[in-house]
Amino acid sequence: MAIATPEGYRALGETTVTAFLAELPAIRGRLGGEPALWRVREVGDGNLNLVFLVEGPEGSVCVKQALPYVRLVGESWPLGLARARFEWEALRVQHRLAPERVPEPLYFDEQLYAIVMERLAPHIIMRKGMIAATVYPRFSEQIAEFLAHTLYFTSDLGMKAAEKKKLLELFAPNVELCKITEDLIFTDPYMEHERNRWTSPQLDDAARAIRTDLPLKRAVAWLKLKFLSEAQALIHGDLHTGSIMVTRDDTRVIDPEFAFFGPIGFDVGKLLGNLLMSYASQPGHEARPGERADYQEWILATVREVWNGFERRFLDLWRSRPEGDAFPTAHFSGPDGERALEAARRTFVRRIFTDSLGYAGTSMIRRTLGLAHNADMETIPDPDRRAACERRNLALARELVVEAEQFADIASVADRARIVARG
Amino acid sequence: MAIATPEGYRALGETTVTAFLAELPAIRGRLGGEPALWRVREVGDGNLNLVFLVEGPEGSVCVKQALPYVRLVGESWPLGLARARFEWEALRVQHRLAPERVPEPLYFDEQLYAIVMERLAPHIIMRKGMIAATVYPRFSEQIAEFLAHTLYFTSDLGMKAAEKKKLLELFAPNVELCKITEDLIFTDPYMEHERNRWTSPQLDDAARAIRTDLPLKRAVAWLKLKFLSEAQALIHGDLHTGSIMVTRDDTRVIDPEFAFFGPIGFDVGKLLGNLLMSYASQPGHEARPGERADYQEWILATVREVWNGFERRFLDLWRSRPEGDAFPTAHFSGPDGERALEAARRTFVRRIFTDSLGYAGTSMIRRTLGLAHNADMETIPDPDRRAACERRNLALARELVVEAEQFADIASVADRARIVARG
Repeated sequence: MAIATPEGYRALGETTVTAFLAELPAIRGRLGGEPALWRVREVGDGNLNLVFLVEGPEGSVCVKQALPYVRLVGESWPLGLARARFEWEALRVQHRLAPERVPEPLYFDEQLYAIVMERLAPHIIMRKGMIAATVYPRFSEQIAEFLAHTLYFTSDLGMKAAEKKKLLELFAPNVELCKITEDLIFTDPYMEHERNRWTSPQLDDAARAIRTDLPLKRAVAWLKLKFLSEAQALIHGDLHTGSIMVTRDDTRVIDPEFAFFGPIGFDVGKLLGNLLMSYASQPGHEARPGERADYQEWILATVREVWNGFERRFLDLWRSRPEGDAFPTAHFSGPDGERALEAARRTFVRRIFTDSLGYAGTSMIRRTLGLAHNADMETIPDPDRRAACERRNLALARELVVEAEQFADIASVADRARIVARG
Repeated sequence: MAIATPEGYRALGETTVTAFLAELPAIRGRLGGEPALWRVREVGDGNLNLVFLVEGPEGSVCVKQALPYVRLVGESWPLGLARARFEWEALRVQHRLAPERVPEPLYFDEQLYAIVMERLAPHIIMRKGMIAATVYPRFSEQIAEFLAHTLYFTSDLGMKAAEKKKLLELFAPNVELCKITEDLIFTDPYMEHERNRWTSPQLDDAARAIRTDLPLKRAVAWLKLKFLSEAQALIHGDLHTGSIMVTRDDTRVIDPEFAFFGPIGFDVGKLLGNLLMSYASQPGHEARPGERADYQEWILATVREVWNGFERRFLDLWRSRPEGDAFPTAHFSGPDGERALEAARRTFVRRIFTDSLGYAGTSMIRRTLGLAHNADMETIPDPDRRAACERRNLALARELVVEAEQFADIASVADRARIVARG
């Protein structure tokens, strides 16, 4: 049975996308030449959408169109088209706050639920690069910039309440995608659910153990509550290495369709969790033992630099641009006031750190025991080797969730990852 | 200069309100008889609105109309009419969740920004009753019911995320009234500001001291941040004894125009703070020393019963009606699971308790050193006696804010209030 869609909506194909773009003068000018000459390729490999790359003689664009169902599953799992509008709005906010870290948004079609944006080239999806053990030397500083700018300036520290609540109103209806996160990350993996899957029978015991792990489930329930109710900043909502495109010198964040006002630590943590999962997966990709040891160390250095870079930039923004309504500067004048405020800043980022470790852990668990898995692990063909990597990933994940408060700093997390990997 | 208002808006008077109601068949039927026979009185004594009581031969109604400025200050402080719509929407939600604790909402006029609702009689504003030392034996249980039901069922414990976020979207634009709270409660009293006032010169030193009290200002800044960003439940937003109408047997909550998604502790705390402020004010109303000692003890008993009753009902609702998305019951089955979940419930209400004490303290400070004062204190004619009461009120308030976490329970708060009162 076909899913009903709004009037005027039709899924684009490689030919119809040309006709669509040919009617947009600005896009037509950007591509150049006659539409008949444009080259179109459908390249969507995510879970939800169609993605077309369109090249003309003078330039290129990317067209991303929402489908009315979850592409990964099929028409049996319908999903509202409106998510494309949330993605468009989030893309515009993020592009304003971190213009060099996000593709330029060019046009949104309200009927087709299609976004036209800058085409990134020669960027690739970061996850693919990491599976191939590619080093991205500028990644940590650039993603820290994205995180700090988009999260600080949409929080009550960097944005006036009146403006923040306009955005809150705009993104509040994005419930369908939030619900996916609530279910797939915070709920399903901790109970029996038909959507769950894992490397079986190797991890059957681990999947069973997690369903009776009360300290873990309690900690996850608090993280879920915070995800539901803490409107801290406009978060990307799905910031894993599959939502990041890279070259050696450039980092861009794409796909903010899960955006809503949630906890800052969810973005930071999902990213850290995906990096740590890549770390755990590396031995599974070795042709000979130890071949990827250096690359693993680069990943751990990146984990440290992402957090430390984010923290430093976030604190610097708070010190230099206190433009929100929280922590009024007039209350903290003079040296004593500044010291008190600085202590509050440290407390605030420490809380984000703890949240981030918790959310990192939940991301690592859901990608091992839940519905959606990561290519980092899935591309390890031998199930025994894969399961061994996944088991170490789960062990670290549990510590991050249950013992988040015990980690002194990000270096301790990296050290712990190394120990768990050895053992 | 008159303030521009939307087309169709006009401030009602005692004659025009009759013409307005006469055109509403349901209201006309309720009042009965010929409109010419209806008796109308304007009784608004709050800070913001017009309030008319209309009596017909068969019944009566209350009409509340928003003015486009702050009535307390005048046209020099314009204020959006839209607040009437937020009040109407909040009234409907609260009436659905606690039908016996809220006047019945009857009609909303989109052009006049006027709410028609059940007229409460013979109720009086609770603050007036407390100034006259009137005991309300059913108040604590009834207000605890209002608090528990309205806050639990709009939180992620009692309401599905999709429904909660619809309400979040609806109330997000209520920024103007939130801003009043942010400024008048959390900001102005802690700095020099032309809007501040206090019993002078008696409290000049206290007003000065608070402006340099860094531990207090830091704690207040955290409370402000939580008010700005924690979308925990649909809160009333202005729950003081002037927003409650009572008889000996009945308690009703009115005036939810400040409603938005904020911290649960703000409602509970503002109420507790206003009760404690009434407690501190009682000696100022005594014709002979000690005359109100029994009444003061009734207030402290009420403080205890309000919190304990709220806590008990909130926990009972969580145990019996876990209808929200947080803390999935499927994760906590069996005796061990139930114990873990019960521990989480205790932690959750303890956090609300701590928040409530903080918000109680900020309410007590703002009504002593900020713009809007309470009749509890203002009706004490001798400024020396008034200042003595206010000084004790400030002393307790500071402890509640700075040492919220140190109070073991509400009985300790009541005990501490008694000790501070003795000087």
